[in-house]
Amino acid sequence: MVDLIRSKRAGREMTTDEIEWMIARYAAGEIPDYQMSAWAMAVYFQGMTTRETADLTMAMVHSGEEIDLSDILGVKVDKHSTGGVGDKVSLILVPLVASFGVPVAKMSGRGLGHTGGTLDKLESIPGFTVELDMAAFKEQVKTHGLAIIGQSEDLVKADKLLYALRDVTSTVDIIPLIASSIMSKKIASGSDAILLDVTVGDGAFMQTVEDARLLARTMVNLGNAVGRRTVAVITDMNQPLGEAIGNRNEIQESIQVLQGGGRKELQTFICELAQIMLDLAGVHKALDEIVSHLTNGAAYAKFIEMVRAQHGKPEWLTEPLEAEFIKTVSCSKAGVITKEAALGIGLVAMKLGAGRAVKSDVIDFEAGINLHKKVGDTVEVGDEIATLYSNKPITAELLAEFESFIEIGASSAPHKEILEIID
Amino acid sequence: MVDLIRSKRAGREMTTDEIEWMIARYAAGEIPDYQMSAWAMAVYFQGMTTRETADLTMAMVHSGEEIDLSDILGVKVDKHSTGGVGDKVSLILVPLVASFGVPVAKMSGRGLGHTGGTLDKLESIPGFTVELDMAAFKEQVKTHGLAIIGQSEDLVKADKLLYALRDVTSTVDIIPLIASSIMSKKIASGSDAILLDVTVGDGAFMQTVEDARLLARTMVNLGNAVGRRTVAVITDMNQPLGEAIGNRNEIQESIQVLQGGGRKELQTFICELAQIMLDLAGVHKALDEIVSHLTNGAAYAKFIEMVRAQHGKPEWLTEPLEAEFIKTVSCSKAGVITKEAALGIGLVAMKLGAGRAVKSDVIDFEAGINLHKKVGDTVEVGDEIATLYSNKPITAELLAEFESFIEIGASSAPHKEILEIID
Repeated sequence: MVDLIRSKRAGREMTTDEIEWMIARYAAGEIPDYQMSAWAMAVYFQGMTTRETADLTMAMVHSGEEIDLSDILGVKVDKHSTGGVGDKVSLILVPLVASFGVPVAKMSGRGLGHTGGTLDKLESIPGFTVELDMAAFKEQVKTHGLAIIGQSEDLVKADKLLYALRDVTSTVDIIPLIASSIMSKKIASGSDAILLDVTVGDGAFMQTVEDARLLARTMVNLGNAVGRRTVAVITDMNQPLGEAIGNRNEIQESIQVLQGGGRKELQTFICELAQIMLDLAGVHKALDEIVSHLTNGAAYAKFIEMVRAQHGKPEWLTEPLEAEFIKTVSCSKAGVITKEAALGIGLVAMKLGAGRAVKSDVIDFEAGINLHKKVGDTVEVGDEIATLYSNKPITAELLAEFESFIEIGASSAPHKEILEIID
Repeated sequence: MVDLIRSKRAGREMTTDEIEWMIARYAAGEIPDYQMSAWAMAVYFQGMTTRETADLTMAMVHSGEEIDLSDILGVKVDKHSTGGVGDKVSLILVPLVASFGVPVAKMSGRGLGHTGGTLDKLESIPGFTVELDMAAFKEQVKTHGLAIIGQSEDLVKADKLLYALRDVTSTVDIIPLIASSIMSKKIASGSDAILLDVTVGDGAFMQTVEDARLLARTMVNLGNAVGRRTVAVITDMNQPLGEAIGNRNEIQESIQVLQGGGRKELQTFICELAQIMLDLAGVHKALDEIVSHLTNGAAYAKFIEMVRAQHGKPEWLTEPLEAEFIKTVSCSKAGVITKEAALGIGLVAMKLGAGRAVKSDVIDFEAGINLHKKVGDTVEVGDEIATLYSNKPITAELLAEFESFIEIGASSAPHKEILEIID
């Protein structure tokens, strides 16, 4: 291993055998963390080629359980987002795609810091379980055409170890390591094709379009190099996505969209993503037809089917939020909303109880923020901009903090969700 | 610590407080190895300023015991070599300097791989102990003016940890880390001034004069920055130093030099080093006068005084080597010796039993090599070049290996031991 670190330090390309040996030994606990962290830091400075990144990805895939979805008929398409604020895309997209008969067997994650997690949002539905064993997971996809569960403990063992190590050694923001971490999980999850939502901006991991493009290009090349058709969209995460930031309120907004309502740009965005996923599955549909599955109840029916299959109680979905403390923020001047800073607003939602500062924090499903106005909306003095929900007193300081993330000006540039498509 | 790693990764200069915090926490076991190794790799790529290196050095000094030699009268001058083959300099230099009334309180190290260690060589003298407690060490220097002992376990705790970590994470060859490791030990040992022998060439850690010069300059700046007068000499280590490579045979050669004999260039080299050390102590002597302390028995008397004080039996010093297997290598052609490759010859000596492949190996004090001819010497067919001693059978393969490291040609460039002096 000392030789491999030296080799990478010197900028030499590692062989497939070297990468496989290293990851297998690391997963087996035979290579210590202090050697992997030195190697990761050398990668920060020297990078990895596409071939090395693909080898690393597959070595991580082989380090744990690999899910075989081949007994589910059809092209299985997975979707992954690099994270954001108010990102309820999967909650709507998965049933929408499934409503076209394309099976979606999805593993999702939990929220941390300012970013939410699909699993937490689903668990805000009373009874809903994200812990299915593999047999039950596949059976549900076969029967109902969709399932969203937590990632198996045995998946990509090496990535779990390496990700935790990178987190504490300042080696997180390294494109080939990010790409191989994301893609190894998607590949081990067994889908045939992958749609990647690479968020960019204030509330995203990638701060610039250039970085997002590089990550997206790396992952698309990687997926295609290992035989999984992969398309990436680069999407804006300078403001929260949609209106709701939280858990149960995001379920509520998702249901609105699944029933043909909600904000128009959110509907359009998700239908565009659905079109790409359907294309990847070989099912080519016009955007109008996809929208019709929201307005005619087909997508919503699939969502309810999934909720029931995973033991959630659909009758609870329409209950209003039950937070003890509710505060409304109103406009003190007229104009156009020019900024709703995603990172700051995400952290306020976290402080209200909707997210976790550390992994062990318990989430308050009723807490969160509903934005009544979004960037580009015209406002008058006194208009309600947002409502904050919490079961802890909402301090004047936190309200002021929230308001500091909203800016009102004279005009705003037109807003696009999808900035680029990389395939 | 994650922030400090990120900062160094970005090439920012760390503050004195940050460096002190990091080293103190690392020595206390509160910063894990995987963070220090990532930091060290970032230092490989981003370097450290002179100020950072000085701060790191002093933080390491403060991480363990600091020896106070202030109750020993006079300017205490220490000497350190970056290691080599046949390097018996300290064995001669310490008594020679002490014979001028300049106290030398020296801590030395052990050999590993192709390099020998002063402690091992001294222990080849029956009874000689290198393990004195601090009180006995200082008392001996006060009474006799010299002592050579092993490094205290409690000295520079952080350096011990960091050095072991660097060894297994490919972060050894980083000039500011090498410099701070060496200098922290010298500074913690309490001397007022330091002579550094930076070896360069085939058998040395530094392979080029440029690298040696950079290391020497870094350490001299460092020593002077923290108030210890420091001079470095860059010396040739392309061939072994002197004639003997081993342990007891190096003691024998040292005694020859201490009695005014031995190879002339070795005598001259050591007298030049003695002159620098004496200058550092404010005792200015002509080279002739220094040589006279070898020829008049003054230096040898000091050596014997040290051997007796540290419980060695001087009567054993004149016993011939008692190896079971002895092989002599002779010239198969006439000419001039053009090469005696230090690394290769050092490794042959190790294989004969004179050194350690791994730290736990036991040394055979009687094993070793005596070179009867050195680079530049004229030889005839049949002249004896070297004698090999071992208590294991000396195989034809090992003899052939040894011979492969000797080259005979038509002429050789004049040889110098000291290539540069940096102060």
